[in-house]
Amino acid sequence: MTNLILEQHAGSPVDSSLDLPSYISGYVDGEGCFTVSISPRPTLLVRWEVRPSFSVSQNADRSQVLLDIQAYFRCGSIRPDRSDKTLKWETRSLPVIVERIIPHFRSYPMRSSKQKDFELFADICERMVRQLHREVTGLSEIVRLAGQMNPSGKRGYLPAAIQLSLQEMEA
Amino acid sequence: MTNLILEQHAGSPVDSSLDLPSYISGYVDGEGCFTVSISPRPTLLVRWEVRPSFSVSQNADRSQVLLDIQAYFRCGSIRPDRSDKTLKWETRSLPVIVERIIPHFRSYPMRSSKQKDFELFADICERMVRQLHREVTGLSEIVRLAGQMNPSGKRGYLPAAIQLSLQEMEA
Repeated sequence: MTNLILEQHAGSPVDSSLDLPSYISGYVDGEGCFTVSISPRPTLLVRWEVRPSFSVSQNADRSQVLLDIQAYFRCGSIRPDRSDKTLKWETRSLPVIVERIIPHFRSYPMRSSKQKDFELFADICERMVRQLHREVTGLSEIVRLAGQMNPSGKRGYLPAAIQLSLQEMEA
Repeated sequence: MTNLILEQHAGSPVDSSLDLPSYISGYVDGEGCFTVSISPRPTLLVRWEVRPSFSVSQNADRSQVLLDIQAYFRCGSIRPDRSDKTLKWETRSLPVIVERIIPHFRSYPMRSSKQKDFELFADICERMVRQLHREVTGLSEIVRLAGQMNPSGKRGYLPAAIQLSLQEMEA
C-alpha cells in the first residue's frame, strides 16, 4: 500500500480533483490532536472520569479548513483557543467519534506516527462504548493505553498516580 | 467545485484509498510555508537578490510525511531547523518550483487563505523565469507582490525600503 501510493509524484498524470477525505487526513496529521483526559470525579463509582477529545487548530485568519472539517464530520464546535491566538474545532462526543471520526482515519490513515496515537485513542473509545471505563480493571487498562499517547505532550494527572488510586480502590 | 467537494462527508461511501496529492495539499495547508526573500547583493545589476523558498516543517519524531513530500516532489533537502526542535524540508530551486510545485497546487489547491500566498509566490516565480527580477521595473513589481505575502509573518527588508533603493537606482 505504502509503495503503491508513492508511485504518484508531482507532475504525474493523476486525476486533478482534490479528494477532501485525503486532504483532511493530511491536514489533521499536521494540526490535529487526539487526547484522552482522565480527571478525578468523586461522584463516579471508579472516581475518575475519562474524556476523549479530537481537535484541530488553525490561525484565526485561515479558518476555512476548520469549517470544511466541521461540515465533513457534521459535528463539533469552533471556538477561540485560550492558550494562543488560534481557533480550535473540537468534538468530545463519544458516539460521533466512534461512528464518524474513527472510521475516517482507518480508511484514510495519517502517514506520520500520529496514526499510532489515533489507534490508541480509537482503542480507548471502543472500550468506553463497552462501558469498560466504569469498572476498575477496565479503567486501569485505559489509563495504561492513555499513558502511551502523545509522549511529548503535556499531561494532567500522571498515569502512575491514577493507577495507585485504582489499586487503593480494589484493596 | 467547493460545494461538490463538501458533499463528501465522513461515513459516506467513498473510495477508501488515500489520495497522496490531496493529502500533501492538506498537510502543506497546515505546515507549509511559501516565502520570497529579497536581500541586498551589491554585485548584481539591480543590487537585490530574489530567492523563493517552499518549505514544510515537522517535529523530528514524526518525520515520515517529510520523506513522503521529498519523494513526491522528487527534490529538496531535509535538515534540522535552527529556530526550534523541528525538521524542515525545503526547496529553493526555481526550475523545480515552476515545473513541479506550482502545477501541484494549481491541481490540488489549498482550502485556506494560504492558497492566496501560493498564487503570489507562483506569480513571482513565473516572472523570475522571464528574468523580470533582473531589471528595475520588473523587480519593483516583484517587491510589491512579495509585500502582500504572509502578512502575519516576520520580514527581513521592508518592501518600502527596497522600493526606495530601486527608485534611487532609476534616478
